[in-house]
Amino acid sequence: MDPASSPHHVVVVGAGFGGLEATRNLTGAPVRITIIDRRNHHLFQPLLYQVATTSLATSEIAWPIRQLLRNREDVTTLLGTVTGVDPAGKRVLMEDGEAIPYDTLVLATGARHAYFGHDEWEPYAPGLKTLEDATTIRRRILMAFEKAERETDPERRRARLTFVIIGGGPTGVELAGTIAELAHDTLPREFRNIDTREARVVLIEAGERVLSAFVPAQSAYAKSALEKLGVEVELGRAVSECNAQGVVYGGQHLPAKTIIWAAGVAASPAAEWLGASADRAGRVMVEPDLTVAGHPEIFVIGDTAHVTTPEGKPVPGVAPAAKQQGWHIAATIKARLKGGSSVRPFRYKNDGNLATIGKRAAVIDFGWIKLNGRIAWWLWGLAHIYFLIGLRNRLSVALSWLWIYTTGQRSARLITQGSAQTPAKPK
Amino acid sequence: MDPASSPHHVVVVGAGFGGLEATRNLTGAPVRITIIDRRNHHLFQPLLYQVATTSLATSEIAWPIRQLLRNREDVTTLLGTVTGVDPAGKRVLMEDGEAIPYDTLVLATGARHAYFGHDEWEPYAPGLKTLEDATTIRRRILMAFEKAERETDPERRRARLTFVIIGGGPTGVELAGTIAELAHDTLPREFRNIDTREARVVLIEAGERVLSAFVPAQSAYAKSALEKLGVEVELGRAVSECNAQGVVYGGQHLPAKTIIWAAGVAASPAAEWLGASADRAGRVMVEPDLTVAGHPEIFVIGDTAHVTTPEGKPVPGVAPAAKQQGWHIAATIKARLKGGSSVRPFRYKNDGNLATIGKRAAVIDFGWIKLNGRIAWWLWGLAHIYFLIGLRNRLSVALSWLWIYTTGQRSARLITQGSAQTPAKPK
Repeated sequence: MDPASSPHHVVVVGAGFGGLEATRNLTGAPVRITIIDRRNHHLFQPLLYQVATTSLATSEIAWPIRQLLRNREDVTTLLGTVTGVDPAGKRVLMEDGEAIPYDTLVLATGARHAYFGHDEWEPYAPGLKTLEDATTIRRRILMAFEKAERETDPERRRARLTFVIIGGGPTGVELAGTIAELAHDTLPREFRNIDTREARVVLIEAGERVLSAFVPAQSAYAKSALEKLGVEVELGRAVSECNAQGVVYGGQHLPAKTIIWAAGVAASPAAEWLGASADRAGRVMVEPDLTVAGHPEIFVIGDTAHVTTPEGKPVPGVAPAAKQQGWHIAATIKARLKGGSSVRPFRYKNDGNLATIGKRAAVIDFGWIKLNGRIAWWLWGLAHIYFLIGLRNRLSVALSWLWIYTTGQRSARLITQGSAQTPAKPK
Repeated sequence: MDPASSPHHVVVVGAGFGGLEATRNLTGAPVRITIIDRRNHHLFQPLLYQVATTSLATSEIAWPIRQLLRNREDVTTLLGTVTGVDPAGKRVLMEDGEAIPYDTLVLATGARHAYFGHDEWEPYAPGLKTLEDATTIRRRILMAFEKAERETDPERRRARLTFVIIGGGPTGVELAGTIAELAHDTLPREFRNIDTREARVVLIEAGERVLSAFVPAQSAYAKSALEKLGVEVELGRAVSECNAQGVVYGGQHLPAKTIIWAAGVAASPAAEWLGASADRAGRVMVEPDLTVAGHPEIFVIGDTAHVTTPEGKPVPGVAPAAKQQGWHIAATIKARLKGGSSVRPFRYKNDGNLATIGKRAAVIDFGWIKLNGRIAWWLWGLAHIYFLIGLRNRLSVALSWLWIYTTGQRSARLITQGSAQTPAKPK
């Protein structure tokens, strides 16, 4: 912590996949690092939908950032909210008024779901980016069945048992498949007035196919796997309205009390902080070495950066891309500190695409091989357990999945509220 | 569900230990049962303090009530809030206006923490009865260390690192011991500006000893075990004030930003619903067979009933007592339906008292044998794993404890809020 002994101060904002990987790969470099996040935990977002659908507990996919970095004496972890950057003064501005000076700045602040000019839809169609989002969606899904059980009007009961997922990317597909399994495998026999198997799960995608990052044949496979689970897949229809009664899509009104938004994300306000040029989703247009034009000391990575492949295609907003970028800029920082000045452009290596549909099917595209079905599902599961951090969570998630796979029972079916109740009044 | 085929309708309010045990022991009886709870889950309260202190995840100690009873076709589970009872009309009144008729009523509605005329203390000294309470306390404990890390004023930092637990019963002792371990075993090396081992954990008890349900020698052992963990035990001093600055006890002010209330409970308003006589804590004064005077068809059990042993001592508000009462009234109901009319008085069988102090020590009093120390701790752990429901949660809790025991790391160190965040605004 003595500034004289390690003068170069790297500030990393955001402890997601990108920020954490950058920090890790600066191990041994002659720097001191401050990593700032407004959450105390790193979140394994690829499995967040499993918390929302009662398969996993919150603590199985989240780790305290301090704990992950506790052996790194060169790293200080700060829980706090960044509200801006002063590029001229080289300072990060915090909500509480503090200003943290940096020599090198890494902005890895991620993205939030976005409603493309329809923020008024949010109360009716929550999105899925944080643990709180996941427990909110979990509560809504479970409460829908509870309310349907006590509803006597058949039409209103039908609306309670209709689940709409907007967006046919991996998150939308995974949510739709798991909600269908919840209704068909987990919940039947528990209710006395409703048959949960009558629940409708409707996946609405504005484009012509689901999982558009995959080849058309795999999209078609995913669609048919969803339909086998009982999901209704509606393609080529955009949603024009979400409200308390349901959704309007393709001009048609569907009464539905539970709507989940998996359609769009917008970058964090990093571009605004920097006054940098951004794409339509708010992502910073970075240089080939992931720095900001005119500021070689500022890197932007992950979901908040707009990066293109040498072929001109956008690098997808997925965990492996963020990690590769974190690794890349750590190497750049280390090379610079050794006196190097060459600008190495970032090159995205597509290690493959994976998406799962329920507990039996998945699609995998490794480029050289494409797999659909049960073997793909097992590979998907092994890959995700491998990418979890630490033996503890690997064992725990493996146990949870084994249980669901063999019994159909999900362990995290809790309806919890945010605030504590008022105490009882003693006499 | 056909009233003609099973005319006798038992309504059980509350799916805690008592209500669930009554329902289970009515298996095969010629009744139909409706079990009502305002939560969707049965909670294993003896381990709730472990959620509050980051050792266990919420889903490890809670089970969906519907799932527990899914094979019981005679049981209907209702998620809803009871607001009253109409004993003359034999109906349970629900918040939503519904009235549910019963032939036999079982009130097993439990207790809440109570501040004995000082409800204004609650915002500063939350109590521990629900999962939401536990995640609130967990957030406060973790945030105290986070805020201390960023506090530059030594006095204010000291207040941030002072944890006060009010009440020296099992919950208070367990909380104090675990918070001390968190500060001494789990968190050191993770902070850069504070030494978490300097945290003060103060346990305040108005009586002359902790764990007053045990013999004095075991109370003394528990006190010394707590002190070995670094807990300051303050006996014979009542708290006269809780506020944002700290507590006043024995006339002395202690600056503390984290206060937890483990001192008192009050029964649910069952006595008010019935217009029945109650003790000072609001518990219904029941007849020897656990019915309400003048209403042989209404049973009150568990923490909301005032029951005495034949020696005139009050039956303690613990899980085994509630379960025994649930078992007893199920037997009474079955005997009545067979035409019996004899009133069997309930007799409490004390199977023993257990309390744990951190991860190495416990006290056990089985009557015929009393144990302190490490062997007691292992017995405590095995007993609690045994009493958990289902293999899934037994494996999961065993894994969590094994991990804490061997590594000192706790897996549920998450700071989460109640509500979801607002979405990002796309450009």
